[in-house]
Parts: sequence; C-alpha cells; structure tokens
Amino acid sequence: MDIGIIGLGRMGGNIARRLMEGGHKCVVLDRNPDAVKDVEKDGAAPARDSADMLAKLSSPRAVWLMLPAGEITEKVLAEVAGLMQPGDILIDGGNSYYKDDIRRARTLREKGIIYVDVGTSGGVWGLERGYCLMIGGEEKAVTHLDPIFACLAPGIGKIERTPGREKRDPRPEHGYVHCGPAGSGHFAKMIHNGIEYGLMQAYAEGFDILRNKSSDVLPADERFTLDLADLAEVWRRGSVISSWLLDLSAIALAKDADLKSFTGSVADSGEGRWTVEAAIEEAVPADVLSSALYTRFRSRRDHTFAEKLLSAMRYEFGGHVEQKK
Amino acid sequence: MDIGIIGLGRMGGNIARRLMEGGHKCVVLDRNPDAVKDVEKDGAAPARDSADMLAKLSSPRAVWLMLPAGEITEKVLAEVAGLMQPGDILIDGGNSYYKDDIRRARTLREKGIIYVDVGTSGGVWGLERGYCLMIGGEEKAVTHLDPIFACLAPGIGKIERTPGREKRDPRPEHGYVHCGPAGSGHFAKMIHNGIEYGLMQAYAEGFDILRNKSSDVLPADERFTLDLADLAEVWRRGSVISSWLLDLSAIALAKDADLKSFTGSVADSGEGRWTVEAAIEEAVPADVLSSALYTRFRSRRDHTFAEKLLSAMRYEFGGHVEQKK
Amino acid sequence: MDIGIIGLGRMGGNIARRLMEGGHKCVVLDRNPDAVKDVEKDGAAPARDSADMLAKLSSPRAVWLMLPAGEITEKVLAEVAGLMQPGDILIDGGNSYYKDDIRRARTLREKGIIYVDVGTSGGVWGLERGYCLMIGGEEKAVTHLDPIFACLAPGIGKIERTPGREKRDPRPEHGYVHCGPAGSGHFAKMIHNGIEYGLMQAYAEGFDILRNKSSDVLPADERFTLDLADLAEVWRRGSVISSWLLDLSAIALAKDADLKSFTGSVADSGEGRWTVEAAIEEAVPADVLSSALYTRFRSRRDHTFAEKLLSAMRYEFGGHVEQKK
Amino acid sequence: MDIGIIGLGRMGGNIARRLMEGGHKCVVLDRNPDAVKDVEKDGAAPARDSADMLAKLSSPRAVWLMLPAGEITEKVLAEVAGLMQPGDILIDGGNSYYKDDIRRARTLREKGIIYVDVGTSGGVWGLERGYCLMIGGEEKAVTHLDPIFACLAPGIGKIERTPGREKRDPRPEHGYVHCGPAGSGHFAKMIHNGIEYGLMQAYAEGFDILRNKSSDVLPADERFTLDLADLAEVWRRGSVISSWLLDLSAIALAKDADLKSFTGSVADSGEGRWTVEAAIEEAVPADVLSSALYTRFRSRRDHTFAEKLLSAMRYEFGGHVEQKK
Repeated sequence: MDIGIIGLGRMGGNIARRLMEGGHKCVVLDRNPDAVKDVEKDGAAPARDSADMLAKLSSPRAVWLMLPAGEITEKVLAEVAGLMQPGDILIDGGNSYYKDDIRRARTLREKGIIYVDVGTSGGVWGLERGYCLMIGGEEKAVTHLDPIFACLAPGIGKIERTPGREKRDPRPEHGYVHCGPAGSGHFAKMIHNGIEYGLMQAYAEGFDILRNKSSDVLPADERFTLDLADLAEVWRRGSVISSWLLDLSAIALAKDADLKSFTGSVADSGEGRWTVEAAIEEAVPADVLSSALYTRFRSRRDHTFAEKLLSAMRYEFGGHVEQKK
Repeated sequence: MDIGIIGLGRMGGNIARRLMEGGHKCVVLDRNPDAVKDVEKDGAAPARDSADMLAKLSSPRAVWLMLPAGEITEKVLAEVAGLMQPGDILIDGGNSYYKDDIRRARTLREKGIIYVDVGTSGGVWGLERGYCLMIGGEEKAVTHLDPIFACLAPGIGKIERTPGREKRDPRPEHGYVHCGPAGSGHFAKMIHNGIEYGLMQAYAEGFDILRNKSSDVLPADERFTLDLADLAEVWRRGSVISSWLLDLSAIALAKDADLKSFTGSVADSGEGRWTVEAAIEEAVPADVLSSALYTRFRSRRDHTFAEKLLSAMRYEFGGHVEQKK
Repeated sequence: MDIGIIGLGRMGGNIARRLMEGGHKCVVLDRNPDAVKDVEKDGAAPARDSADMLAKLSSPRAVWLMLPAGEITEKVLAEVAGLMQPGDILIDGGNSYYKDDIRRARTLREKGIIYVDVGTSGGVWGLERGYCLMIGGEEKAVTHLDPIFACLAPGIGKIERTPGREKRDPRPEHGYVHCGPAGSGHFAKMIHNGIEYGLMQAYAEGFDILRNKSSDVLPADERFTLDLADLAEVWRRGSVISSWLLDLSAIALAKDADLKSFTGSVADSGEGRWTVEAAIEEAVPADVLSSALYTRFRSRRDHTFAEKLLSAMRYEFGGHVEQKK
Repeated sequence: MDIGIIGLGRMGGNIARRLMEGGHKCVVLDRNPDAVKDVEKDGAAPARDSADMLAKLSSPRAVWLMLPAGEITEKVLAEVAGLMQPGDILIDGGNSYYKDDIRRARTLREKGIIYVDVGTSGGVWGLERGYCLMIGGEEKAVTHLDPIFACLAPGIGKIERTPGREKRDPRPEHGYVHCGPAGSGHFAKMIHNGIEYGLMQAYAEGFDILRNKSSDVLPADERFTLDLADLAEVWRRGSVISSWLLDLSAIALAKDADLKSFTGSVADSGEGRWTVEAAIEEAVPADVLSSALYTRFRSRRDHTFAEKLLSAMRYEFGGHVEQKK
C-alpha cells in the first residue's frame, strides 16, 4: 500500500526505507532537502508540501508523522488534518504524550479523520532489526494499516516462542500490538521507556561497583581489578541478566572499558518523566523508575543546591568544613 | 577429566549431568540418597563420604561444592580440605560471600590446597542452556579446570558476536571468565545478582503501572485495559528492553496475566544485600539496587512499624484518622 | 477588621476563633449548621449565603475560603467572585494547586477582584500555637490584610532569633511571609508539605530499625530491646534531630510504644505528589521526597502487582516458590 | 566527682568544660599540648599520660575517651584498660561501631573492667545547650556515673513536657537515657545520625526545588523567585516542619541565600553507612536513609562511571550524543 511520511530524521528515514524494502510506496516530506534526497535515492516519492503529499496518496490516505514530540508535531498535525477528508488516517509515530493523543483523537473524530498513535522502539537498529510497535486507535484503521505494521515489525525471527500463546493474537509475536483506543499505544511506549531507564540504571550501578572494586578506599586485600568488557560479554551467555542493553554495553566496553569519550552528562526525554507522573496518578510505587530519572537530572549539574545546604547545616551544627574528596 | 561434586540440589545435580553429557566423569555425594540415585542413573559414581570421593578421583583431585552458602558450606569445606593433599583443588560453586573466599583461599594455600570460587548463573535452565561462570582463583588451577568450565558454559551458540573482541580472551564469549584471584568470581556473581534485582524491579514497576492504568482512581477517559501478556511478548522483538527476564515474564503472563498463584511475598538472598554493602564500602551510589532490595523486604510484611509511626504523627498534628483505602 | 470565612472544618473554625480572639469580626458560612453554631458561640456572625456574607462585610470585602482543594473550592470561588465588586479580595487558604491559583488570579484580575492564596500550616494545634502562613498575591492586598495575617501567625514568641535578620522583612519572624505573586504562597506550602513527608519518613525508618533490633533474624548477642518512647524523648533535648515532629512522635510513643491503634495504612494528599511533579518539571533530583510518597502508596495495598511479577520471574528462572516469611 | 578525659577536640574539650562548670574535676590528656592548655585554663588538671591520669583519679576510676572512631580509639582503649583495676570504668563517648562495643565489653568484663558506650549528640553547640546522651552498659556503672551524665545533658529546660511520661524513667526528660547493655548506646546514636541524614536531605531537596522555581526550564508565568531565607524563617514558627536543623538552615540562608561558600561536596561518617547496614541485617526497608547517604557519595564525584555507561548505551542504541545541559 502507499503511505505518506513526514519527518525523515534518524527514525523516519529508516521507517520509509524498511517500508519500501517491503514493497510499499512512500511519499515523503521533510524541511531538510538533504534528508529527502537520501530517501528519494532509495525509491521514495518526494512531496512539495502536505497538500502535494495527500494528492499523491490513494484514499483513504494514511500519513505517518515522525517528528519530535511537542509543538512541531502539533503544528504539522493540525496542518495535515486541515487538508484531510473523512476516512483518512493520521498516524503519530513519535513520542507524544498519550493525553495529547486522547485529545487529538477526539477532535479529529469530529471531522471523520481517524487518529492512530504508534509507539515505536528500535532506535538506529530498527532498519535492520525491525521496529517494535505499540499501536493505539480504532480497530478498523489498525486493521487497514496492518500491512504497514507487519512490514515495519521484526517478525517472529529466530526468537524462541513463548509457550501458551497458540490461541492468542498472533501480532505480538510478530513484534506489533494493538493496545487499545487512541493514546494506549503511546502509553505503552512511555512505560517501555520508563522500564528502559530502570534497566539501564541497574546495569550502570552494577558496573560502577565492579569498577570501583579497585578503589583505594578499600583494604588492599579486598581490591580486585576486574575486566568490565569481559564481564559484560560473559553475562550475555547463560546468565539471568542477558539482554539487548547488555549486548550494547558489551559493545561499548569492548571499544573502551574506561568509556573515556563520555562526559557522564545524561539527557532524559519526556517518557521517563511521564512514567513517574503516571505512577503517581495511579498511586503505584515506582522507586526504581524514579531514581533512574533523578540520576540523569543529577548528572547534568556540577553540584546541586541541595548538596550545598547539606554542607551548610553540617557547618552550623558541627563546625564541619567540607573538603573535596 | 574426573571431578567430585558435593551437593546435588537443583543446581548441583544438573551440573553433574551436563558434565557427564560432555564426557566427564563425576563422583557425587549428597546426604539425600534419592538425589544421589537420580544422578547415578545418568552415570555418576556415588561416593560413601568425602574420603571415598577423594579416593575415587585422580590427582590432583578437584572437588566442586554446590551447597547453600553459610554454615553447611564452611563445614563440608573444612572436612574435605582436611582430607586433601597439596595440589588438590577445592571449588565452591555456590553463592558464598567473597570475603569468605578470600579468607578460605589464604588458609588453604598454607596447606598447598588451591581454592577456586565459581559464581554460577543459570538456574533451572542451566542444564539445557549452559551455565554462565565467573571464576576466581589462581591461574594454574583455573587453566587445569578449563575442560570442566568449557563444558558447563553455554559456548558461543547463536548469539551475535560483539565487535572488537577478536584479540581478547576467548573464554567470555564461551560463557565463562576468569575474573582474578580468589573471591573475585563470587564478587562478580554477587554484582550480577544485584543487577538482576534491579532489572526485575524495573520490569515489575513498569508492569504494575500498566496494570493500574485501568484503575478507577483515574478519570474514565484516561483509563486503558492493557493486555500485559501481549505487551511482554511484543517487547521481546525489536524493542530496547528485550531480555531473558522479559522472556520469562512473557511466559508467566501468558499462563496467567493476573499472576493469581503468587502471594507477592518475595524472598531475597545474600547477594542483593552484599551488593548494597559493597556499594557503601566503595562509596558508590546504588539507589536502584537498594530500592529493589527494600521492595522485597517490604513485600514480606503486612505493615511496617514505620508506616504506623507515619499515621501516629499524622494523627497528632492533624487529627487525621487513617482509613484503609 | 472584618472578614468572611467560608468552610468551618478542622482548620476554618479555629481560624475564625483565633481572629475573633484577636479582635477581628468574622462573618461565617458552612453547609453544616452545627459547625456554624459552634463558631457563633464564640462570637461569629453567621451568613445565610455568599450574598448575605458580602452584604455584612465592609468594603473592600475580604472573603477567606477554607475548603477542601478541588471541585468544591472552584465552585464556591466562582460563586463568591460572581457577587464581588472590583477591589474585593478573595483568599484561598486551603491546599489548592498553585497552577490553579495562577489561572484564577488572572481570570479574577480582569474583573478587578484580587486573588490571594495562603498556604496555612499548623493543623489542629494552630488555634493555640498560631498558623504559619505562606502568602501569594499582589502587594497591595497583602498589605491590606496584614492585620489578619499578623493575628493568625504565631508571632515571635519565645523562639530564639536568627542572627543576621535585623534589616530583613520582619514578617517571617512573626510567622507569615509574602512569597510573591499569586500561586507562590501555595507553591511554598506545597514544598513545605513535601519536606514534611520526607522528615516523617526519616523518623519512621529510624524508629523501625530501632524496633527491629530485637528481631530474631539477628544473632542473639546483637539484639537489643530499646525503649522507643524514651529515645524519642531524649532526642528532644540537645540532639541534632529535635523537631516538632519528634515532639509529636514522643507523645504518640509515650501513649503506646507499639502504636497498636494504627493499621499502618497512610493517606497522602496532593501536595506530596505535586512536589514530586515540580521537581521533575525543574529537573531537580528528589529521591527522598519521592520515596516518602511511594511508601504511603505501598502502605495502602496488601501486595503490589510488581511483587507478584518478581515472584513469577523467580519461579520461572529458578523454580523458586515464595513463602510468606 | 572526678573523671579522666582523653581527647580534647571539638567535642572533648567542651565536655570537660561543661563538667567543670558543673563542679566536677577533670583530669585531661591530649597529644596536642595547645588543646590541653586551653582546657587547663578553665580548671582541668593535665595528665602526662594514661598512667598519670589514672593515678590522679579516685577509685573506681572513670575515664572518658572522646577520640575519632577506629584505630586510635582501639589503641588508646587497650592502653588505658591495660593499666586499670577491676571496678574501673572505661567510657567511649565517640562514634564507635556498636559491634565493637559488644566485643570490647566482653573482653574487658573478663578483667573486671566495666565498659560504657555513650552516643553523644550536640556538636559545637553542646557546651551551651548540653549534650544528648545515649548510654549503653551495666546498670551499676551507669548509676555510678549519673552525676556526670546529668551534668552533661541539657536538663528539662524550657521544652514543653510530653504528656504521659509522669511514671516513666525521668532521665530521658533530662536529656540522657540508659538504652541497655554495652553497644546499645552507640546503636541508638547511630540511628540518630541515620535519621539526621534523612532529615537533612528532605530539607535539602525541598529548598532545591524552591530555588529552581525561578529556572528558565519552566514556562515564564510559572516561575517564582522565592526568598529562601524568609521561608526557612517563617517555617520555624507554627509550621509542621520546624526543627533545630531548620533553625540552622535559617541561620545559614540568612548569611547567604546562595550558599556560595560551599562547594557542594558533602562528607559522610560511619553512622549513616552502618544505619543502612543495620536496616539490611534486620530486613527493614530504609529507602530514605539510603538515598540520603548516596546523595553524599554522589556529591563527592565529578561524574560516576554509572552515568558514563548510561551515555554509552544511549549512544549504542539511539546514536544519541550527550550534551552538557
């Protein structure tokens, strides 16, 4: 089938490529002409603008937005929706906040336009590995788009089958799932990312303790100098903690076990924050997911004001003058 | 080669079996005669006692203890060591505290006995999947035992190779690693388990938030009823959070997405606690690994005294009377 | 001066009483006639409804709402504001979300009505001890209301003066502070409550560890049976951790050191949650304030789904069957 | 009565002074002659060495060690004990680990020497305010030393009495308490310090959120510039979070609300760490006390290795290149 794709960044361009490799026709748009040219080389049809894109698609037209969450997505979404006909489908494949999806779906439904939100995981590896898709929206539209989703998803591959799934919806085994109404796709993706933060932090703390096992704050006969790259590698096989994030850690540590090229400042995006907010709204304890987020906040500051106040109190009650370790 | 194995529980019995399938000869001992008989059927030679075991092994004799960490391991270790000759090798494959390893190795070295500690991961799946082995001890003994380790470990298998490891020690790619001197094997295994706690807790919190998304504390139009088994399944393919623990979660949730057969009381073993203590000794922040441990502590109590004191303070300052939600 | 007070619950009734003791005239309204009668006995003038209240006040009229945050406050506020004249002052002394204050102040300003938010701390002790007031709103209105605030606040009392405040705004030493524009009063009160959660949790954990020092999980010669009431009492004098919350803990523990009358279910209100959300919006790490909140969430559940999933994973990888401690 | 004091640092010197003001006779020893001279001016009798000190005291001799916990305390303790007679009393008023107390008391008991551990809180303010004392050891010795403890403790002072204590041990109301056998005094002091860490961190996080409320990461109309010194001051009166630590924060913030003289590196001492270890031994959740400790660990590093690994994973899966905020 044919589909329009707006936003040809790291994710959008590869989504187009994977769809074209699967035999689909992509009409593409990006404000960066080089990004467009790159995908054009792989067979995509460039559009001059939204109207041109819609003109080049067969009805019902399906347009996939792959833009940074926030203002730009809102703006383009409004523009494209303004040009659509009843029955057309507008897909947000970015990382929008699921409450925005709920609002948008309601507004667009009044005009007969169907809104579908797709949480897309896979990063730069998605072109080759396939994308894990979490989809929210009306059944009819999701069914209509099934060839697109099936093509983007990884498929069953060589991964061992989970026993007991024989009579269940086969789509999750192929790497995509229809979660529920609009918003539920991005909600699931949001929690996915929240979990990701927690997993990353668990490995990070563990490797930090391994590394500091050679620290001279320890008694000499309790110190070890451990090979972190070897440990990451060995845990990939047969251990309880094998995972794709561990595979990636093994790659990074094999390149440089000191990770000297990284400053240690770590960005965070909306999903980690929204996950904590969702936990609070539901009154579900989320200690690990929150700590993982706070570590990133802390990593971006030289010192917090909190720490200075701790020192100030120590000075006031004990005359303690802090020293840099 | 031949090896003695003392302790034929869930792990020890399967270790013997995997070694025998690999062509090694196992002399086995357990105080439970049924456990011995089971392994005898698969070809093991039973020993009457430690002395009999040592008599049946060729020199240098290697004995692998696979017993619960603590008193019983200490006791059997002392007994076997008392019967050994210089050059013999005593292996602790259980979950001993690494500081005990350091002490034991020092003591046994005086008698010429070589002590090797092996952190063994793999659980009930190890027979089939192989065991991930983290080894501490003298190079010579570790080299001597290489056929044993190579047999128990999973081997390279179908797992994708990590780029950049070509010139490195090949053992980690086969699933076993020599970490360093005595104690370092169990230290690495301890951190492995600490990470495991953190990973498990990250998934657990995420799925809890997914499940409570249908809770009536939320506005009706923000509720979703999500299929947790399908989400666990879809994340196994192409997502950033795919892992073996997720595979297992998918199996458990496919059986029963409500997990009704579990009370929610969660045990913890020494490694999780020792990991936190190691972090503290090194002054490394370990928020996530600690929280994961505390969740288990909390899960085993109906209520904490801490919670009652919170209520008592609330009553005193605000006249608040708590109600069961 | 005279003032209208709507909402005569635990806080509102006592606020009226303290104002009347200070010589102010209170016109009061509550849907519960008994609450009205109680305050009438102490000299308050009852109002039939909002219109009647406004008719009984001198211009500019000042009305203090002391209602539960949320719908009811919004509703009454709209009703009263609809009857007010330019120059009148509407005060929300409850626990509203500060973003609601910002919105309300903007809306009311268009009609010439001045909105003032007052975060009020003091609980059931406020009548006697005075209320700590955190005020947001226009300088002019705050100055006009100064006699009200000065009367409600505790005053300098016997509390030791902070050196270096001689040239500063004297109001904070009297127990009230003008924080800034509308919303800032409730923002400060929100953080106050967030800190309160953290402080309470710190004491709660400490006393829990003291209490469990007699637990039989410890070696017999490391157990102590400590008198928690005596420890709370002794720390009130000369220790670094003396505080009002400790005073209250000492009272509660002196009554019953086992706190048997408390189930351990602990409620939480909006401020603790909003504090965490504010931290996230500002990217400030708030580990302790978040953990304190999560403990309360956890206290209200028999078991979390998270805990069941931990058990399920343990069962899948290790064949572990959990037992109730 | 008379008493020997060894160690005239920030705490020991003032303890001697407060005792002499109370009419007791102090024989003092310190390796720093200036410290000795300072206390001599206030009436203390200097000792040349331990033997000389013991010779100058009446039987049973009581010697109070006020030395840094660890090697130096162990060394001096062994030396003095070696010179003591049965019935003499050795007091450790420092911050020793309570398990060391248990061991020492057992050893000294064999020689008839009585060991008493005293957890001493009060910091540089103790001379004036009195010291809060948590005492462990045999009843007889504790009773014998009562005049010393009563003199050092703050006494009832102007602090409001706790209702319900009429029939209880009066000592806690005077600021000292006999907790139980040897070790229990330092155990109680250890938990006191653990709670202190948690309280400090709660204030620190709260003030950090207040301060960052003016941050430009927030929408302009949701920013406030709050006066932290005024807020600390106002909360001292009538609020739920008034405390001595808040008094000290108010002093520090009144001097400089930016706390520019503090780098933000925060030291930690044994008690905070041991508190977490005690919680783990007892299987009591201690999220807040642990987080408070980890914050200090983190404050002393420019970046953690954990953070670098987070960045490395992000780079591997998403091609993300981190930027300093």
